[in-house]
Amino acid sequence: MFRHVVLLRWVDGAAPEAVDAVLEGLAGLPAAIPELRSYVFGPDAGVNEGNFDLAIVADFGSVEDYLVYRDHPAHQALIAERIAPILAGRAAVQCELPR
Amino acid sequence: MFRHVVLLRWVDGAAPEAVDAVLEGLAGLPAAIPELRSYVFGPDAGVNEGNFDLAIVADFGSVEDYLVYRDHPAHQALIAERIAPILAGRAAVQCELPR
Repeated sequence: MFRHVVLLRWVDGAAPEAVDAVLEGLAGLPAAIPELRSYVFGPDAGVNEGNFDLAIVADFGSVEDYLVYRDHPAHQALIAERIAPILAGRAAVQCELPR
Repeated sequence: MFRHVVLLRWVDGAAPEAVDAVLEGLAGLPAAIPELRSYVFGPDAGVNEGNFDLAIVADFGSVEDYLVYRDHPAHQALIAERIAPILAGRAAVQCELPR
């Protein structure tokens, strides 16, 4: 199993509607990309100062399946049309999952 | 369920032994902190440029249990003694998990 973890930070003053549009788009990806075995995302709960704004944890059967997701047109369209316009920061790691 | 996601970046030239000491320390935390229901961490696989170096995904039964972990002496000692000396960057989100 192979995991992709990404944290996103929005620009100051990002419209709630724009953030909701990202969440709605993410929710549609598993139906479009069957390589996604597990797709869990959620907005920061506001417990700590200085956090990023959204966490996404995606699990795949292999690194090749992750690459299908990474480069999939539905994913790339979501990034270009909804994420990029409000994106202020991004941090990512891909790692093997223990069996 | 409540999730804590953190990505860490090491300083350039961090010694492999220092990184291994962090991984060894993390592996010991679930035995010390029973509030940790799931604790998955792994070094970046090197698939993409610009990534952080380590992902940690920790799941708890509640935000209160997360706070026990956050402030636990065993966790704080690991941060102070092994993580802080090689830390170049940190990104974190805590979020509610869907049921």
